Amino acid sequence: MRLVRIQHQGIARWGQLQGDTVLLTAGMGAEPTGEQVPFVPSLLLAPAEPSKVVCVGRNYLDHIRELGNDTGDLPQEPGIFLKGPNALAEPGGTVARPDWTANFHFEGELALVIGRRASKLTAENALAHVAGYTCGLDLTARDLQKTDLQWFRAKAADRFCPLGPWLETQLDPTDLRVQTRVNGQTRQDSRTSHMIFPVVDILIYVTRFVTLEPGDVVLTGTPEGVGALETGDVVEVEVEGIGVLTTPIG
Amino acid sequence: MRLVRIQHQGIARWGQLQGDTVLLTAGMGAEPTGEQVPFVPSLLLAPAEPSKVVCVGRNYLDHIRELGNDTGDLPQEPGIFLKGPNALAEPGGTVARPDWTANFHFEGELALVIGRRASKLTAENALAHVAGYTCGLDLTARDLQKTDLQWFRAKAADRFCPLGPWLETQLDPTDLRVQTRVNGQTRQDSRTSHMIFPVVDILIYVTRFVTLEPGDVVLTGTPEGVGALETGDVVEVEVEGIGVLTTPIG
Repeated sequence: MRLVRIQHQGIARWGQLQGDTVLLTAGMGAEPTGEQVPFVPSLLLAPAEPSKVVCVGRNYLDHIRELGNDTGDLPQEPGIFLKGPNALAEPGGTVARPDWTANFHFEGELALVIGRRASKLTAENALAHVAGYTCGLDLTARDLQKTDLQWFRAKAADRFCPLGPWLETQLDPTDLRVQTRVNGQTRQDSRTSHMIFPVVDILIYVTRFVTLEPGDVVLTGTPEGVGALETGDVVEVEVEGIGVLTTPIG
Repeated sequence: MRLVRIQHQGIARWGQLQGDTVLLTAGMGAEPTGEQVPFVPSLLLAPAEPSKVVCVGRNYLDHIRELGNDTGDLPQEPGIFLKGPNALAEPGGTVARPDWTANFHFEGELALVIGRRASKLTAENALAHVAGYTCGLDLTARDLQKTDLQWFRAKAADRFCPLGPWLETQLDPTDLRVQTRVNGQTRQDSRTSHMIFPVVDILIYVTRFVTLEPGDVVLTGTPEGVGALETGDVVEVEVEGIGVLTTPIG
């Protein structure tokens, strides 16, 4: 099932997308209320209301290598960093290229949204805590990643996390193609089966230390092929079985 | 005025503390509803409902030196890191010493809570966006700070940010004594006038990149004297003009 979050009469509403119709619901995983509206893609919002956005820094070996961070040993733990809810941006929404970075990078990723409070998850129950899967664009001020004490400006600035277009609730995340295109040209093209830490492992690791709440977002890391964006570029992140997240750079 | 957040009939309520009485309000900065309850310290909750907790990493030169991070030049920018709302812990609440760190440190700090949405603040309007000031305890897994890709386990784990006991709304933050005691012994004793980046500068810097929402918490950095905690220790953070935040380590 596809769960959408949309602008409706001036407020944010969740719904189920069925063909060209949105069956409005009272919340992310709730039953339809009986209200129906036509599906209008330009009214889509980021499909999550997180208390935090938890991101995996290094999860594809090719990406670790391209940034020169390959020390010969695979990471023993999924390096995690945080963004706040201020980072979310809606599908199709323009993200202004900040004037305070000289190297504004795209990182296309599989994202997931938590459905139930999650602490100390196990291999058996981890995926049952996921409400659905979507596409994430982890925008990065690559130059400031090197100079920030922690990746605050580099990763957590306003609108540095476009997310969408919707949540796909029935999906096996273990071997999905993840592609990023810039102006129609493929720049990243990998599969989630290449992750060093699969989704289940990420959830087990994160929830050893941090309780995830319903609505929290997890970005699972980016494969190789990251690169710089300029004003006027259009980024598309496509994850197999989900759809395409489009982000114009303004 | 002192704004408290308390457990009342099973839910969290805001109120104004007047002597031994709490005048309940409809929200953090709202007017009293007419409901009154006796003040019971054990019912205090962390006085904030943040979308993010923004922390300054290095703001007192003596602390930079004690961690061996003094490169001879003062930091040019307040190094920022994030915790999520999961990190909050209530005044007086026990925080379990995690079994996954060998070096669990206290860092006492002046904290503030945002009252109005804040973006691109200026020296003239920054403090008008603060709802009030309180005491913060930035708990830190010092050993993992060195090995985490970013300070995720080290800083952002559940209950790593006791906060309280209340918000003091009328306070000049520029020269307040900040003390941390462990088992009654003074371990940190400094003044906010020793900050490299005063509160106004922190707010201007942070809101250049990140929009702060009402309820968001800012921790302003810790002075020298940090050290390790063991089970059974009791940490007190006292900020002049506010009060004492007490945290037993379980």
